[in-house]
Amino acid sequence: MTPDEFRAAGNAAVEWVARYLEEVEDYPVLSRVEPGAVRAQLPPMPPESGEPFEAMLRDLDEIIMPGITHWQSPNFFAYFNGNASAPSILGELISAGLGTQGMLWATSPAATELETHVMDWLAEMLGLPEAFLSTESGGGVIQDTASSSTLVAMLAARERATGFTTNQTGELGHLTAYTSSQAHSSVEKAIRIAGIGSENLRLVDVDAEYAMLPEHLERLMLEDVAAGQTPAVVIATVGTTSSTAIDPVGRVGEIAHRHGAWFHVDAALAGSAAILPEMRWLHDGVELADSYVVNPHKWLFTNLDFSALFVADRTALIKTLSVLPEYLRNEATESGAVIDYRDWQVGLGRRFRALKLWFVIRHYGVEGLQFHVREHLRLTRLLSSWVDEHPDFELAAPVPVNLVCFRHIGGDEANQRIMDTVNASGEAFFTHTKLDGKLTLRMAIGQTYTEERHVRHAWDLITKAAATG
Amino acid sequence: MTPDEFRAAGNAAVEWVARYLEEVEDYPVLSRVEPGAVRAQLPPMPPESGEPFEAMLRDLDEIIMPGITHWQSPNFFAYFNGNASAPSILGELISAGLGTQGMLWATSPAATELETHVMDWLAEMLGLPEAFLSTESGGGVIQDTASSSTLVAMLAARERATGFTTNQTGELGHLTAYTSSQAHSSVEKAIRIAGIGSENLRLVDVDAEYAMLPEHLERLMLEDVAAGQTPAVVIATVGTTSSTAIDPVGRVGEIAHRHGAWFHVDAALAGSAAILPEMRWLHDGVELADSYVVNPHKWLFTNLDFSALFVADRTALIKTLSVLPEYLRNEATESGAVIDYRDWQVGLGRRFRALKLWFVIRHYGVEGLQFHVREHLRLTRLLSSWVDEHPDFELAAPVPVNLVCFRHIGGDEANQRIMDTVNASGEAFFTHTKLDGKLTLRMAIGQTYTEERHVRHAWDLITKAAATG
Repeated sequence: MTPDEFRAAGNAAVEWVARYLEEVEDYPVLSRVEPGAVRAQLPPMPPESGEPFEAMLRDLDEIIMPGITHWQSPNFFAYFNGNASAPSILGELISAGLGTQGMLWATSPAATELETHVMDWLAEMLGLPEAFLSTESGGGVIQDTASSSTLVAMLAARERATGFTTNQTGELGHLTAYTSSQAHSSVEKAIRIAGIGSENLRLVDVDAEYAMLPEHLERLMLEDVAAGQTPAVVIATVGTTSSTAIDPVGRVGEIAHRHGAWFHVDAALAGSAAILPEMRWLHDGVELADSYVVNPHKWLFTNLDFSALFVADRTALIKTLSVLPEYLRNEATESGAVIDYRDWQVGLGRRFRALKLWFVIRHYGVEGLQFHVREHLRLTRLLSSWVDEHPDFELAAPVPVNLVCFRHIGGDEANQRIMDTVNASGEAFFTHTKLDGKLTLRMAIGQTYTEERHVRHAWDLITKAAATG
Repeated sequence: MTPDEFRAAGNAAVEWVARYLEEVEDYPVLSRVEPGAVRAQLPPMPPESGEPFEAMLRDLDEIIMPGITHWQSPNFFAYFNGNASAPSILGELISAGLGTQGMLWATSPAATELETHVMDWLAEMLGLPEAFLSTESGGGVIQDTASSSTLVAMLAARERATGFTTNQTGELGHLTAYTSSQAHSSVEKAIRIAGIGSENLRLVDVDAEYAMLPEHLERLMLEDVAAGQTPAVVIATVGTTSSTAIDPVGRVGEIAHRHGAWFHVDAALAGSAAILPEMRWLHDGVELADSYVVNPHKWLFTNLDFSALFVADRTALIKTLSVLPEYLRNEATESGAVIDYRDWQVGLGRRFRALKLWFVIRHYGVEGLQFHVREHLRLTRLLSSWVDEHPDFELAAPVPVNLVCFRHIGGDEANQRIMDTVNASGEAFFTHTKLDGKLTLRMAIGQTYTEERHVRHAWDLITKAAATG
């Protein structure tokens, strides 16, 4: 493709995306294809000769689109939202066009320095503790997902707990980890990957609002210490996946510190809400954290992937993850004056993702981001009030941020039927969890294009499905 | 940004990338900024109000570009290339525009099925063994980097070696791993992360051509077995990072199997060359591999990130990495009729990266890809012949694929000076390694836009720098 052919194809691709953003509301949100239906339309062997770009766009429309579940639809209320935005899409385009690889400062100083800078901006915007700033003892780094952020935090915790010897010896001693029964599955996955073993992950009981019980944490830790175990890490959640429960971060952090454990805070979804002064309380106690994760790709309009990991002591992270072969040696690295982000993550290669958040922050401005997040919270409270007022529905959990957990009073079968009916309509898509063993419907409101009318319509679909059951 | 504003900004961004691709040759390849110079130009605090897109493009030109090391320059010969192409850039744009998240089949069936399909295509194109096909016992999955591919392979190996119990118990027993002294640093990093410990990673000696000595591998494994260790995994490299040495995969694989160890093949760079029938020998013995990695983002024109991991037994991988919380349960998953790629990787969320390789394969066709890879190999042989014929330079290693390792006969200082001089000129960029303890210059030829004149010019710069020393 010559640059001029790229211009033509690029403009066609931009037009394709623009049209998609115009029409995304009209697609059935949850894809309706059957397993294998997409593959069946693809040629079994790759083409021998090249094809024109139009052929790809046509197949995109005809073969791929029916198999897309529309995460960018304003009628998407499932899981946690993954809200993208026009400036972040263009940041991704330019990052791909530059095709740079920021494994080392030297392999693109601007990629590293912009990352350090926007991560400091983000820390400021969310009211995170000073220790997380690159200008202090810590710093932020972009990871692909919160799973990776949590994994590298677990690894640093493991190494610190063993005097930074496990990397060499493979001897873990008797390490234990602690999180609530409501923590994200990525915590257990990270504990497994790190070789600590899920049997050594203690699931702390929660209170009636699904938040971790600090006294139970304390008891578990004391029992483990008495049994000769070494508490290595405690993970608190600010906004659990099931119900956005907020663990008492300050009290949990104090207990973790008292036992010498690394303290990790998972605020992957809810942390973004702290961009609002009135929601800054979400970060109460985070000053005790050794590490903290928030995902701008969930609720700050920055398309996947962009998980922001902050650490209070960057040397612990680097000591854990650094391996320096000869072929990566260079003057800047040896000088110690620069950051090499490869030592802050699992992988070596890395894309220039800082551009995305840079574009997003500059396009919206802090005020613009606050406006949209505040509106999501308003819509969530509105939906919550409708549930509360409806005689056949009940709220299943508190609503601290942008998720409403609710149930029809008719029990699991009724709720399953309501969910299946609405999702099959294609007009809205939401998912479920279990709270207290009961099937619970969840609606997360954080899509970039979601307005009151979309929430209203989804609620109408739900109540109608309930009424015609 | 309205869709029409997105059209305008999008076309400006496409124009920016088109111009970059036109002018990339004229930039100094290695960035010349000093540490901190980029950051110093950025406002200390994020903007309160939004800014127009033009402001970002202007700052991109003025602040960011001087800090970019131009991986897409035809004069980039450093590390291993990371070659992008126009169709892959547009695949990334459309993927970002769709903003879908393919953690589960249900969350975008087309993202999963296209991935399965293009990975099968890739296996066919590279002549990989049938077991790696999704239609057989294995399958392919896209990871961000080879580090992640190798990590998940190590984890599956660890679990298989312990009867799939380490995930639960954290008891590793006495596992050992084996790779050559020339293996990539990501192997050691993965062994550390998995909790096996780098002291239990045996570095096997290499022959005069830097390829693993199978008889030494065998001896190390026998010693470990005699000492009560359990050989868990052997990693062979097809194209080492220092010198693209090719381990004797078949013999290594036989030894690994004899001792019941998982056999992983790292062909991150060189595997792509097997798209040529005359280079298919690179995959001799790969039929013995339990897992295999090749990075289309290195040498198949697919922009970072796109690492292709193949496994012969997908159930081992899934058993290792699957954690299923209630909020991810869905009918399609329970039916067992679909792939959920979250169970094939560390993270939960995943971008729709299959689009990139799909566009690349269709744009070039297999013939087009073969043409460009073959041309890179021709240019590499040409450079190799120039080195060979020059009285003051010598080849430092065989040249099986697209890397020439060479030295000036004047010793380390002379070579360092030559490299620094050329890299400081901005007209070419290459890096070094150490072979036999001697500083060795490396030129990798695989950039999308590299032509004979670029290689010729780089060689002229090198010989001129040598002559004026």
